[in-house]
Amino acid sequence: MRLGIDIGGTKTDAVAVDGQGSVAQRVRLSTGFGQAEVVETAVTAVTRIGELTGLAAAGFDTIGIGIPGMVDRSSGRVAHAVNLGLDRVELGDLLAGRLGRGVRLENDVNAAALGAYHVLGLRGSMAYLNLGTGMAAGIVVNGSLWRGATGIAGEIGHLPVDPAGELCRCGQRGCLETMASGSAVARHWPTDDPLPVRALFAAAAAGDPEALAVSAVLAEGIASAVRVLVLTVDVDAVVIGGGLSHLGEPLLAQVREVLERWSRTSPFLASLQLPRRVRLVPEGTPVAALGAALVGEN
Amino acid sequence: MRLGIDIGGTKTDAVAVDGQGSVAQRVRLSTGFGQAEVVETAVTAVTRIGELTGLAAAGFDTIGIGIPGMVDRSSGRVAHAVNLGLDRVELGDLLAGRLGRGVRLENDVNAAALGAYHVLGLRGSMAYLNLGTGMAAGIVVNGSLWRGATGIAGEIGHLPVDPAGELCRCGQRGCLETMASGSAVARHWPTDDPLPVRALFAAAAAGDPEALAVSAVLAEGIASAVRVLVLTVDVDAVVIGGGLSHLGEPLLAQVREVLERWSRTSPFLASLQLPRRVRLVPEGTPVAALGAALVGEN
Repeated sequence: MRLGIDIGGTKTDAVAVDGQGSVAQRVRLSTGFGQAEVVETAVTAVTRIGELTGLAAAGFDTIGIGIPGMVDRSSGRVAHAVNLGLDRVELGDLLAGRLGRGVRLENDVNAAALGAYHVLGLRGSMAYLNLGTGMAAGIVVNGSLWRGATGIAGEIGHLPVDPAGELCRCGQRGCLETMASGSAVARHWPTDDPLPVRALFAAAAAGDPEALAVSAVLAEGIASAVRVLVLTVDVDAVVIGGGLSHLGEPLLAQVREVLERWSRTSPFLASLQLPRRVRLVPEGTPVAALGAALVGEN
Repeated sequence: MRLGIDIGGTKTDAVAVDGQGSVAQRVRLSTGFGQAEVVETAVTAVTRIGELTGLAAAGFDTIGIGIPGMVDRSSGRVAHAVNLGLDRVELGDLLAGRLGRGVRLENDVNAAALGAYHVLGLRGSMAYLNLGTGMAAGIVVNGSLWRGATGIAGEIGHLPVDPAGELCRCGQRGCLETMASGSAVARHWPTDDPLPVRALFAAAAAGDPEALAVSAVLAEGIASAVRVLVLTVDVDAVVIGGGLSHLGEPLLAQVREVLERWSRTSPFLASLQLPRRVRLVPEGTPVAALGAALVGEN
């Protein structure tokens, strides 16, 4: 049995994965803020999954943890996990001390990429396009993560596509993330609705011109990200996940519309069959926790 | 001994490569136009290298051919090699018939990528950014070509980066190729000089405002390509080659200046150390022919 934990900004998701790669047990917790609380959250997740499976921490084949920020997998150090209140924390050592065994750390988007690849039963190459607060992609080739030379492969949210675009938090202008991300939607369409993208699409469906414009920019940004991933890595599939993806089919349909519109004026793009390559991560599947359990197997 | 042939739009370069991966013999020919002439050029190259090495076609361990266009490596079919007057030609079969043995075909940019990786003694990952008539990249990971799911990995010349940019021959607007390629320079700075980019940079150095503007767009386009390759694949090195690269250090210096300017306003970009990753292919080295000889080894 393997154990995977996805530590998110508000929720932590933990799963026990059996030898067939299926989720045997699942636990959800609120994530604490700051170093001590994050460590406590992870330890609690291990304890709770342990109660459900009858296994102590030492009894799992592997324990993997997906977490936002810059993750140094060899040292177990986590930096820039702003939403968790963590920066330059030796999380691997801290958890090993508490659990009495080693754990494997991985960036959460990479973990989700691995989980999505597995859940969808994919072969060949895939990019997992995460639309959360920001935008980033995880790349899987023949079942293994492609992390790149310095661990920043797939950071496409900070590729500029419009010199006249918005200033991005990264200091550049017109980045894909300024068009298509949770923070972009929050800026372009402020609302108190707990599901801002759903509210946006509902307003657009009702004919609100501003909502139509904002959702068009969102779809264009996602479509641009798909194009970037295919024209560079040439992945078989681009799987859309993250908070914005909960909108489901209406979002996918609008992204495909953009890709089809582009194909009508570019035989080159048409030949790439972009609409066929893009799909959604299955709703309700804990891909990041599952992927965290699989980290190190590949 | 291995034999590699790079069939270019005007010149064909052939090399015999010894067991240490060094160029033992080299021959240069003019390339004929059209199916029969291209086949004849390749056969002549094999004959001439054979005279220099004392080997018949059957005596080489492998014969590899780099050629522009869409290359189906398994069938040996070549399509869209516009500058050679070839489209949907069973070049592999035609050459096998003439030479009495099989040959390996590869897209010329991919072959050059493999050759550059080898010549520079690189490890890890590299992108070879070819600035010829168009712009395209070849990606090498741990010594092997990454061709992608459908053979279009690295086609970054057709990534749009400006919605208000020029219309590209691919049907999109503001593609990188419209900023940084031989065709872009020819459009933006028409000249009868046999080395248009050298003339452009000379005029810019003399203070010509139009030349300054055109060379700035060129450098910006190349720098953007470097950024795309690092933020997607996260390659250790981006090696600039192709016709425009003959300009050498002045071109590289201007590209690095753009990357350094960007880094000053973006701590994120600064952390990627883009100026350090970019370099030039060694002048005068037949990287494409050498790479063609190595195709199939990796």
